[in-house]
Amino acid sequence: MARGVTRMSELFLRTLREDPADAEVISHRLLVRAGYVRRVAPGIYSWLPLGMRVLRNVERIVREEMDAIGGQEVHFPALLPKEPYEATGRWTEYGDALFRLKDRKKADYLLGPTHEELFTLMVKGETSSYRDFPVTLYQIQTKYRDEERPRAGILRGREFTMKDSYSFDLSDEGLAESYAAHRVAYQKLFDRLGLEIQIVSAMSGAMGGSASEEFLAPCESGEDTYVRCLESGYAANVEAVSIPAPPAQSVDDKPEAVVHDTPDTPTIDSLVAVARDIAPDRDYTAADTLKNVMVKTRLPGAAEWELLGVGVPGDREVDMKRLEAAVSPAEVALLEDADFARNPFLTKGYIGPVGLAKNGVRYLVDPRIVTGTAWVTGADEPGRHVFDLVAGRDFTPDGTIEAAEVRAGDPSPDGAGPLVAARGIEMGHIFQLGRKYAEALGLTALGSDGKPVTITMGSYGVGVSRAVAAITEQHADAKGLVWPREVAPYDAHIVIAGKDDAQRAAAETIAAGLAEAGLEVILDDRKASPGVKFADAELLGMPTSITVGRGLANAVVEVTERRSGERREVAVDEVVTALTGGA
Amino acid sequence: MARGVTRMSELFLRTLREDPADAEVISHRLLVRAGYVRRVAPGIYSWLPLGMRVLRNVERIVREEMDAIGGQEVHFPALLPKEPYEATGRWTEYGDALFRLKDRKKADYLLGPTHEELFTLMVKGETSSYRDFPVTLYQIQTKYRDEERPRAGILRGREFTMKDSYSFDLSDEGLAESYAAHRVAYQKLFDRLGLEIQIVSAMSGAMGGSASEEFLAPCESGEDTYVRCLESGYAANVEAVSIPAPPAQSVDDKPEAVVHDTPDTPTIDSLVAVARDIAPDRDYTAADTLKNVMVKTRLPGAAEWELLGVGVPGDREVDMKRLEAAVSPAEVALLEDADFARNPFLTKGYIGPVGLAKNGVRYLVDPRIVTGTAWVTGADEPGRHVFDLVAGRDFTPDGTIEAAEVRAGDPSPDGAGPLVAARGIEMGHIFQLGRKYAEALGLTALGSDGKPVTITMGSYGVGVSRAVAAITEQHADAKGLVWPREVAPYDAHIVIAGKDDAQRAAAETIAAGLAEAGLEVILDDRKASPGVKFADAELLGMPTSITVGRGLANAVVEVTERRSGERREVAVDEVVTALTGGA
Repeated sequence: MARGVTRMSELFLRTLREDPADAEVISHRLLVRAGYVRRVAPGIYSWLPLGMRVLRNVERIVREEMDAIGGQEVHFPALLPKEPYEATGRWTEYGDALFRLKDRKKADYLLGPTHEELFTLMVKGETSSYRDFPVTLYQIQTKYRDEERPRAGILRGREFTMKDSYSFDLSDEGLAESYAAHRVAYQKLFDRLGLEIQIVSAMSGAMGGSASEEFLAPCESGEDTYVRCLESGYAANVEAVSIPAPPAQSVDDKPEAVVHDTPDTPTIDSLVAVARDIAPDRDYTAADTLKNVMVKTRLPGAAEWELLGVGVPGDREVDMKRLEAAVSPAEVALLEDADFARNPFLTKGYIGPVGLAKNGVRYLVDPRIVTGTAWVTGADEPGRHVFDLVAGRDFTPDGTIEAAEVRAGDPSPDGAGPLVAARGIEMGHIFQLGRKYAEALGLTALGSDGKPVTITMGSYGVGVSRAVAAITEQHADAKGLVWPREVAPYDAHIVIAGKDDAQRAAAETIAAGLAEAGLEVILDDRKASPGVKFADAELLGMPTSITVGRGLANAVVEVTERRSGERREVAVDEVVTALTGGA
Repeated sequence: MARGVTRMSELFLRTLREDPADAEVISHRLLVRAGYVRRVAPGIYSWLPLGMRVLRNVERIVREEMDAIGGQEVHFPALLPKEPYEATGRWTEYGDALFRLKDRKKADYLLGPTHEELFTLMVKGETSSYRDFPVTLYQIQTKYRDEERPRAGILRGREFTMKDSYSFDLSDEGLAESYAAHRVAYQKLFDRLGLEIQIVSAMSGAMGGSASEEFLAPCESGEDTYVRCLESGYAANVEAVSIPAPPAQSVDDKPEAVVHDTPDTPTIDSLVAVARDIAPDRDYTAADTLKNVMVKTRLPGAAEWELLGVGVPGDREVDMKRLEAAVSPAEVALLEDADFARNPFLTKGYIGPVGLAKNGVRYLVDPRIVTGTAWVTGADEPGRHVFDLVAGRDFTPDGTIEAAEVRAGDPSPDGAGPLVAARGIEMGHIFQLGRKYAEALGLTALGSDGKPVTITMGSYGVGVSRAVAAITEQHADAKGLVWPREVAPYDAHIVIAGKDDAQRAAAETIAAGLAEAGLEVILDDRKASPGVKFADAELLGMPTSITVGRGLANAVVEVTERRSGERREVAVDEVVTALTGGA
């Protein structure tokens, strides 16, 4: 559409009065209703003219901020040969999330989910000396991931647009600088996008650390849960929270393990009640029981699932997302009846560490289950539990795993105070990748001393199409979309309220004046009722709307701010000044 | 890279002194040598920073000209579900050229080669009334075609960028207007891209007609051959040339067909020599012989190949590209030895129409082979030919086919004079598609009379990434790239020739001045010899270069126009004026 004034009578747009049937979240509902996007297949969307304008604004902002830190734009294919991904193992590791295909000559290809390999190989091809570094490259490109559960419209699609950049440095200090530059650029660009952002640690390790951080847009519909400690500023994705292990205790002063009949105690609650009857002096709570959750894991490319027992204190559930993150790249699933049937030694509701060890099942426990702690747990027989089973004496786990839920109110891993929890959308991710890809693909430079130096890399992503949805989630209201000024498809939305020619003429004059002043203007010149027009103006969500109606008789129009709803009368002659001069 | 000044010491660029081994055409050689693109897989390329700048300039120009005719930009996915393409038959018709894949749920998908179906369905979804028309939508999008022979770098790739647009009209007159608007827009945009263009008819029919035209960029490395008649202005892709049929003749006054022994005459030349011996009075030439070329065709999705005999006057070869176009969407191949072995009635070198008919083989002939024409042709026995075999009396072809080569000097199909021939790159294609897709997918609008109207469509393409190569083909010289101003990565290339600080300081001042004046500037501040820098400046191809060298002592620099090679001295203080004021 030509820069300047877009007439709604000509705009390719149909707004919908009803929410789409499959839409759960507000961004999906509104972006479809307002005619910004349309679904083509699960997780695959088309962009209509208004949506395109927002998407291109987001791209422009991201590009400007990447350019500002010296990023150089390149562009890789989306259709990629298998070989580089095989060299790094990701051809297999990606599992079912990778779209794979063959060309007419039966050669294997994939649709790029990310481009670490290609960036690494490109830099390897174009550089040789330490003088060629540091360098930061980026692209804004379509990515493909065959999500198991595409959801929420463009919030989690299977084809989507991302900015990904990579920094290439000679030293760890250089990488730290590149990382810091990206961190600042991301703060700026998300600010320009109008997104409220919480930066959280995405790296395990009790103290967080800055080697990997996520930029989350807090909102209810977010898929990520994060926790913060208001006292210390600690903030982490729950997937990255490491529970500090308490000190190990002596095993010598613990009573002997004893098996008790505990009929009808398949749940923790029923077990605690019986335990309190059996040992009234011990004041047992759920936190004294050891719950053993049976799952199975499978590495990408592996044919067989492997059993895994996960032990957590009985007062906590296993958080499947934390468990998934912990076992990644393996996939994980709960056991089905058939699995229990195949492994008759698993006594549902009464599984214990001793039976697992006896049958060679891998067993990982929550970090709180340290040597010397005593537990009430399954005795591997129906209706029986063992009391005072002591870790490090009566059983030895194969290791620890971060799988227990993290709860608001839990102590912060840094010891500073209680955690608060919230949800957010992952909008960006910065990551000190290090030398993994450079080593796998042989990226070195000749140092100033003539010796080869392995390059160290950073990897940095921004969800570009996702940002359109996230902005909607944070800004929309019951009436429709509310666009921050820098990403809005148009700056001003002019509504001709009535049918008389004077109104039309005045609206055209105002539109032309605003366009001349550099604003993007949409003009509702349709033959429709004022009610329909006002409702559409609110649904479409431009920052400012101007109603040319009866007030024209007094040479005034009504200017409405979409976000605040604030209305004021402005003289026709002063509209341009009011909208551009900030009057 | 930030707008303004790019320093070559920081630019991600390595130029090559040698041509890449696999490069046949100049654009491929130079775009690789100058560090604009890199090969990732056959027909699949990455864009480096300089290439990205040219590509983005081309996109911008295309976008501006589409906007100027009221085109509205949308964006479809590249990953598409099978169903719409099945509804129009193209899922099968595309044959091996379509990249097909399955998702994790085994649903069929494809990588979009073109988006007719999706555009049609989108318009169907968003419109209902005649008031919603006309509308023109476009996208600039990555396309995928699994070419059998990807070649010439980005000139014919398997992943490439296209602008495709579609017009939707209520009437044939509306379609003609939309078509005309695109035709003008294309002329403008190719002009801005600096491309010399020949518009040729892409539609069969002796008079050409404007229902489908191609925009070819004339150049030696082009894959398309076109012919023109300088007298009448007739111009057509050879694939679209229709040979006018001469009038039918009487069969009654023709001598009887006689079979002669013609030993050792497997070629037309040897046959003509023997025929002249046999009938000295007839003055036989190759044009009197009927050559029968055996091929096999197979419709997409069909399991079996079908034999086809193609009869052309013996003085002409079969043009495989014309033949391919004529049998499309079927594929065609020459017979192999195994095919002859399977069909022993085919006597190589002596195949005739009679034997083909006897064995039920489909037989199509050049339009010049009309009823009453008499031919010397194979008698279906080794060493024997039949003379005076008369079409319509002794044999009846199954139809005509445009497969014979078209030659410079041939009469123009419109009767105006001789044809001249040349080669070109297909840069654009405009096509009055009509109601095919609207009918297949049910796109109608409620007319003003309350009755449904089937929408008529136009389809319009521009090769966006290909344009980068075509521009190179038309403009590059032996020294390197030569960019037209509107697409050049940078307007000015400043070379610091020497090592002294004054030169560096002056160059920086000039660069800053030009950037402030709105020019994009690249500054060669590398520690390299002047020779290397000058060679790179010529290889990279910016329109104007400025050498800051010894002349600085006299307060002058040297300004060189890349295209003409013209050099002039300009006072340091006047460089900005000289480059921006056109002085």
